[in-house]
Amino acid sequence: MNPSTHPSLDHSPGRKPSINREDLIAAALRLLGPHRSVSTLSLREVAREADIAPNSFYRHFRDTDELAVALIELAGQSLRQIIGNARHRADDGGSIVRSSIEVFVAQLRADSTLLHILLREGTAGSDAFKAAVDKQLTYFEEELHSDLIRLNQAQGSQLHDSRMAARAVTRLVFAMGATAIDAPVERDGELVEQLSTMVRMILAGARALQRL
Amino acid sequence: MNPSTHPSLDHSPGRKPSINREDLIAAALRLLGPHRSVSTLSLREVAREADIAPNSFYRHFRDTDELAVALIELAGQSLRQIIGNARHRADDGGSIVRSSIEVFVAQLRADSTLLHILLREGTAGSDAFKAAVDKQLTYFEEELHSDLIRLNQAQGSQLHDSRMAARAVTRLVFAMGATAIDAPVERDGELVEQLSTMVRMILAGARALQRL
Repeated sequence: MNPSTHPSLDHSPGRKPSINREDLIAAALRLLGPHRSVSTLSLREVAREADIAPNSFYRHFRDTDELAVALIELAGQSLRQIIGNARHRADDGGSIVRSSIEVFVAQLRADSTLLHILLREGTAGSDAFKAAVDKQLTYFEEELHSDLIRLNQAQGSQLHDSRMAARAVTRLVFAMGATAIDAPVERDGELVEQLSTMVRMILAGARALQRL
Repeated sequence: MNPSTHPSLDHSPGRKPSINREDLIAAALRLLGPHRSVSTLSLREVAREADIAPNSFYRHFRDTDELAVALIELAGQSLRQIIGNARHRADDGGSIVRSSIEVFVAQLRADSTLLHILLREGTAGSDAFKAAVDKQLTYFEEELHSDLIRLNQAQGSQLHDSRMAARAVTRLVFAMGATAIDAPVERDGELVEQLSTMVRMILAGARALQRL
């Protein structure tokens, strides 16, 4: 049987010249699932999943570590977009906190594995992966910081050290998320309540310290 | 040469009948150092370090997982004691926050590996190890909670949801500590500043929400 007459069965190496970085990232994500660390991905396995020859991998990434950092960056970007959208849809201070946290917790339960990559590699990953996650968390902090300034100006209030408030909120939400990742889904409501209270405390505290 | 005439050189298995749990824990701690996970400890290696026959290990622990949980418990106990002492030595609200955080950050740099065990296994460990760390963090929260109530009563103020304030402080300090563990020691001062600001925000926020 000549494989070229059955293109859909054609898994022989190197027959997909049109593959790009995104295809390799998608292949890696399919392999990962919610519990597997990016550090366990092998080049050979990703190439097989993407249906390319192992050597073709190098046209897109130097090694699997570079692919892993690309996954972390994609995870950060996607999550920032999802949570940023939730924040801009909400209309007042209270509901902004709550709706952002609801979206975050929903992402914990989503199949996407993107948030899981950030939560896991930020603590258990190699130094390079931890640094990549830290960079993404810093982007989160910066976006939250801009939003806090904008919202407080609109309400005529000011925050003490608004950058540190944004950092406290971001780090606390991710830490609580990492702990909750294996908790039963029935406790998600409780997690949303707890996180909402904590975030409101930080923001109220930043306003109170500014008045001192 | 008869080894019994050279007791100090007697490393043959089973010649140390007086060994106890603490000796095995001490042996495991010597093997761990700051960068090694408890999950990589082998029974054989711990027994060799403690100078007992591998089979004698089972008189004290069911397996290395049980030993690892004992290490996590010891780490939590020791750190609670160290930070509790710092809190009781300090005399007013501001310096309590700062001196507790200074002691915590100093522990990050200590050789003891105890804090490192808590920070690492809480996120990267097995489910059983994560649960053991979570239990220790909950003890921290409870002690901090009692102290917050006591201190605020003494000052005639009240906190909104003081339990959640204690939880936010504990989780945030441990999350920031886990991130800072590999940072250069020159940045410790900055870490103390940032954490002090964050913790003061949470406590000020808990007081502000109570007044609403």
